[in-house]
Amino acid sequence: MNRDDEHIEEAPAGVPTPALWKQLESTYGPDLKIFKARFDTLVNPRTQQSMVRTVLETADWVNIVAVTKDGRYVLVRQYRFGPGRVTTEIPGGVIDPGEGHEEAARRELREETGYTSNKWTLLGWVEPNPAFHDNLCYHWLAEECEQTEQVELDPGEDIGVVALDEEALRREVREGRLRHSLALSGLSRVVDLWSRE
Amino acid sequence: MNRDDEHIEEAPAGVPTPALWKQLESTYGPDLKIFKARFDTLVNPRTQQSMVRTVLETADWVNIVAVTKDGRYVLVRQYRFGPGRVTTEIPGGVIDPGEGHEEAARRELREETGYTSNKWTLLGWVEPNPAFHDNLCYHWLAEECEQTEQVELDPGEDIGVVALDEEALRREVREGRLRHSLALSGLSRVVDLWSRE
Repeated sequence: MNRDDEHIEEAPAGVPTPALWKQLESTYGPDLKIFKARFDTLVNPRTQQSMVRTVLETADWVNIVAVTKDGRYVLVRQYRFGPGRVTTEIPGGVIDPGEGHEEAARRELREETGYTSNKWTLLGWVEPNPAFHDNLCYHWLAEECEQTEQVELDPGEDIGVVALDEEALRREVREGRLRHSLALSGLSRVVDLWSRE
Repeated sequence: MNRDDEHIEEAPAGVPTPALWKQLESTYGPDLKIFKARFDTLVNPRTQQSMVRTVLETADWVNIVAVTKDGRYVLVRQYRFGPGRVTTEIPGGVIDPGEGHEEAARRELREETGYTSNKWTLLGWVEPNPAFHDNLCYHWLAEECEQTEQVELDPGEDIGVVALDEEALRREVREGRLRHSLALSGLSRVVDLWSRE
């Protein structure tokens, strides 16, 4: 599934690398709409015991640190189904089948916020949670953004858009409204969110 | 489910807050071992359409930025079932039923690495992914750690432990071996992982 993580270098001497687990079997569970559950039977190389582990096959994601010409950060406020509350996040979403991650970043920014940019930089990518997801989340930076388009929300979305300066962005983080790990992950590549002495 | 996120302040004037979604129905899906899948039928207040959304009811998690007396970071290397590869991460795990998050942090650090500390500081918490998880991940800092105990691995674990100085830690990040968003989230509260000019 992961396409951009193929060239990870081997660990240097002194950094232990446990053995890979041998997979004995793999069966699919029910359709979860946003994932496909898979149950893998694997052998722990340390104990030789076999056990079943859940993997959620998940499409890659993208999110966008979008900065306007006057240095404000484009944020979205939406109701989230997990906690049942409204959160502040950066724009983002699921990469469509066959779509590149830059293309998805441009599309999600435009659809969710109406902002567009001609200055795009890949910040990097993370594994959202390798304990059970098999996907990546790409972080893109869009600079000199302008609100040139109409917002086009999916039927499953109801999004408020706001562009905040860095101090107001930090307040969203400090006061706990911006608390999505992947939004913080993207932002932390651009803004020093946590004061360190 | 979320216990430590009850006191989030309302957004200030100028920051839009979309309406909450009304829940019509909620049914449970199959046991996924590490989650309970729930299918909520909700009404989008923007369109008045109802739709089904997946929530994974998930126990809270904890991870630990553990620093030794000589300033090295305690890291774990383990095979991860999502990508089917070995990753570098910080110690962490699932909070047991009835367990406090500090207690869980102390236990996970001890069990996974044998390190203990008398100097614990809560760094904060994040929502791993509010799109479908209902849980929090707490980040703890353990300073002046010493390896005083034997490692006690679960049957489902095979972990290599290493303590790296800050430059070698940055190399794990830079070369893509340390790429778990929640590990990066904890570390970014303590270490400036991303060079910004």
